[in-house]
Amino acid sequence: MSGPKLKSGGAAAHEADVGSQPATLGEIGLDRFAPYLMNRVMGRWNADIQKALREFGLTTAQMRALAVLSVIPGLTIMELSVYTVTEQSTMSRTLDGLESQGFVRRVARADDARAREIFLTDAGAAAFARVWPLMRDAYEKMLAGIGEEEREAFLGTLRRIVRNVRRHNL
Amino acid sequence: MSGPKLKSGGAAAHEADVGSQPATLGEIGLDRFAPYLMNRVMGRWNADIQKALREFGLTTAQMRALAVLSVIPGLTIMELSVYTVTEQSTMSRTLDGLESQGFVRRVARADDARAREIFLTDAGAAAFARVWPLMRDAYEKMLAGIGEEEREAFLGTLRRIVRNVRRHNL
Repeated sequence: MSGPKLKSGGAAAHEADVGSQPATLGEIGLDRFAPYLMNRVMGRWNADIQKALREFGLTTAQMRALAVLSVIPGLTIMELSVYTVTEQSTMSRTLDGLESQGFVRRVARADDARAREIFLTDAGAAAFARVWPLMRDAYEKMLAGIGEEEREAFLGTLRRIVRNVRRHNL
Repeated sequence: MSGPKLKSGGAAAHEADVGSQPATLGEIGLDRFAPYLMNRVMGRWNADIQKALREFGLTTAQMRALAVLSVIPGLTIMELSVYTVTEQSTMSRTLDGLESQGFVRRVARADDARAREIFLTDAGAAAFARVWPLMRDAYEKMLAGIGEEEREAFLGTLRRIVRNVRRHNL
């Protein structure tokens, strides 16, 4: 009765018993490792978008700031950095550029003059409206052949993963 | 009868009628736009991994080369660039670094001496085995609370999306 216990004994064996986790990436397989698959997808997406943005004279960070502000007006620079997945220092320079093009304006918050909220101007909204169709088309190509139900499930899992990995409650 | 038709008339109105595609990102919502969600996830993942790799003296591109070669030995530099989502010129320098550390070797292909196949050395395999546990742990954290069936469905959709966006048949 103690034989098998001794053979596999102790904490290491307990972990091995629990062991639903495969030991190596080779055992999981690249095609079953979500970070690999998502890097493949987003590497292609970001490269395509960056290339397409050139004719609009926009960087990826600028486009992301316009995109996010078109959905959520009045963000602070910290919030905008999180939503655009851009370092705060990079976002600061990005906003300088957008402001000089007349695409955003920063407004002191009523209850705290040090806090600045960022808004699109009409010109900024129009600039994003010009690039959006190509992103929407690229998005439809990305999801081609994937039905409504599968899209919903996929988005639901992605939202859960964002909650699992994010540092800020945004 | 012609009133409404004139008001909305022509091709634009036809598109609006077809319009299962929402017109704006705001109508879709950031939380329902997969590229936004995947950029959030992979921005965090890649930053965390890059930071953790520092103590192993590896760059992200080096780690990815070791990871992919641990699963698929004998790739060419072009194939390795695709799998690691790394520019070929960057991958060339990356392999120079890995070769000088004794982690990879390049072997002329038997039937074509110009083609070089890349393999991990034992030291290279050991180097990846040292960093893999932290990636596996980060992966489990990423998928925390997501059951087996949902993971399978998610991975299946991701593989389909990779096929939709990839340029090479890899």
